Amino acid sequence: MDQIKTKFINNPDDITRELLEGYVLAYPDQVALAAENIVVRKNPKSEDKVAIVTLGGSGHEPALSGFVGDGMLDCSVVGDVFAAPGAQRLFQALQIMKREAGILLVVLNHSGDVMSANMACQLAERAGIKVKKVLTYDDISAGIGAPMDDRRGLAGCVPLYKILGAAADEGKSLDELVEIAERYTANAATLAVAMRSCSHPQNNVTMTDLPDGIMEIGAGQHGEGGGGRKPLVSADETAAEMVDLLCRQLQPKEGSKMMLIINGVGATTHMELNIVFRKAYKELEARGLQVAYGRIQEILTVQEQAGFQMVMAILDDDHIDYLVNKASNAPYWTTIGK
Amino acid sequence: MDQIKTKFINNPDDITRELLEGYVLAYPDQVALAAENIVVRKNPKSEDKVAIVTLGGSGHEPALSGFVGDGMLDCSVVGDVFAAPGAQRLFQALQIMKREAGILLVVLNHSGDVMSANMACQLAERAGIKVKKVLTYDDISAGIGAPMDDRRGLAGCVPLYKILGAAADEGKSLDELVEIAERYTANAATLAVAMRSCSHPQNNVTMTDLPDGIMEIGAGQHGEGGGGRKPLVSADETAAEMVDLLCRQLQPKEGSKMMLIINGVGATTHMELNIVFRKAYKELEARGLQVAYGRIQEILTVQEQAGFQMVMAILDDDHIDYLVNKASNAPYWTTIGK
Repeated sequence: MDQIKTKFINNPDDITRELLEGYVLAYPDQVALAAENIVVRKNPKSEDKVAIVTLGGSGHEPALSGFVGDGMLDCSVVGDVFAAPGAQRLFQALQIMKREAGILLVVLNHSGDVMSANMACQLAERAGIKVKKVLTYDDISAGIGAPMDDRRGLAGCVPLYKILGAAADEGKSLDELVEIAERYTANAATLAVAMRSCSHPQNNVTMTDLPDGIMEIGAGQHGEGGGGRKPLVSADETAAEMVDLLCRQLQPKEGSKMMLIINGVGATTHMELNIVFRKAYKELEARGLQVAYGRIQEILTVQEQAGFQMVMAILDDDHIDYLVNKASNAPYWTTIGK
Repeated sequence: MDQIKTKFINNPDDITRELLEGYVLAYPDQVALAAENIVVRKNPKSEDKVAIVTLGGSGHEPALSGFVGDGMLDCSVVGDVFAAPGAQRLFQALQIMKREAGILLVVLNHSGDVMSANMACQLAERAGIKVKKVLTYDDISAGIGAPMDDRRGLAGCVPLYKILGAAADEGKSLDELVEIAERYTANAATLAVAMRSCSHPQNNVTMTDLPDGIMEIGAGQHGEGGGGRKPLVSADETAAEMVDLLCRQLQPKEGSKMMLIINGVGATTHMELNIVFRKAYKELEARGLQVAYGRIQEILTVQEQAGFQMVMAILDDDHIDYLVNKASNAPYWTTIGK
């Protein structure tokens, strides 16, 4: 294994533990470690409210743990770099979060995460823990209308954390939260584009082999190919093509209230993300759609990969209220609002 | 000029205009364009309070305009990529912001910005506009105890925006704000490290020529050399060396309340920033210092450069109160707080 000469790390085996340690030291009023790789709120909410829990590998910071906090996640269960946490760890978290009101587990559709979640939920049920799952599958790179199984969970989970966190705070029941989540996931879609690859921080292996001047629309969060390689075009052309594909998936009606997030995955600058947002906004406007909620941020990264994810959803009024008008102190959620 | 094949942009001449357009479309409840390259709050605060204004080139997003909003900046005047805005543009902004209470102009110590600020302030005084300047000069790469003239303004300006915005909201006078700011700048210091260069988005020129496996401590925000090139060491060694240099500059007394911000400048991952924060925190703790305010974020970037800035300050209690306890809705400021 090559020595890692391109990143500020220590022993590659310690990456996840050390980054979580740093994270909770930086934000001690908001988050804490309840156990190894289990991030929870510093001030837990009352037990008569449903807990929102998620899971996923590290290496995507600030996701997922960056969104633990009042008004968002109650708990994030972290795996090693790009690896799902094991079922035992997740079960441990469910035991910590156990409550009468129940637990809603948000699972991004990646096979490792799904497997751990299924197993942990079985263990939890046997232990008398009330838990339900909701799957996010926003990626559309497998094609318009592809079956849910073929659609990965990308950054579209993050606004869902906000919606569910706010709704749970309001006292919504577990079943009501499942309905709110499923109504969101059925109307959410994400498309990623990559332009320069990243390296895995534990072994220095390059995740994909994108040549200079080539972009790949539909690239996954871990080097998975999307099939859409072609020479790099302008920001406007890229944005227009992606909006078109997303709208073909979502089929919004004229006047629909849309969410539009440009999520930077690493090396692509905020400067570029702003320029892409501008064109995507205008494309939606030209279709008679209203951007009710916008955001330009690195919410879920893929190491130092260059590229971005365009996250879109048709929002109902309750979704907008939870997204916009309710505060959160999660360390990486900036408060929007009037 | 080579065609730009590595970034999502359109015509290189349109970068600044387009990114600002995208920005205000994404955050319409918080920010607006008052004129070309002049970003202001959507809801201006009352005129009996001092306005906080800053200026600087684009290409460093989310800085500086990302921190316009309730409780932070009133106005950001933007130049072209890595270029100061002209004095006329800045004077135009001062005219827009004119008020009895006065304007406090926060200027990062870079020759172009200082020149524009001096000239615009002269024009403003002739026009009967009440304005005072405060200079930020947190960079210590010129050496411990180097004269203020040799110290550039780095990301240390951003927490100052928060402090001043909150203090101005409270009704502090122009003179009181100058005192609060000077007490902060006298006790703030930043050190940057670069590991991989970036390219200028308008001409594709590489900003520095850092070989693989080499890092440069003290690198500036625009490719300026810092003199400290050496083979890359571990995150912990890098953090320890930087903390040592910053503490030699600041000379905090045991028990001092410190600000510690790890600012990612582009391609360096949030993962790494967390790991660096962890060690820096422990180094401060080992010196008997208390981290009263921490943050890990990309607040001021240098395109896709790899590296980070370690921003440190000895805080007084009023600074902490303004930083921690007062809310802001600026699009890139996450609300901390109990």
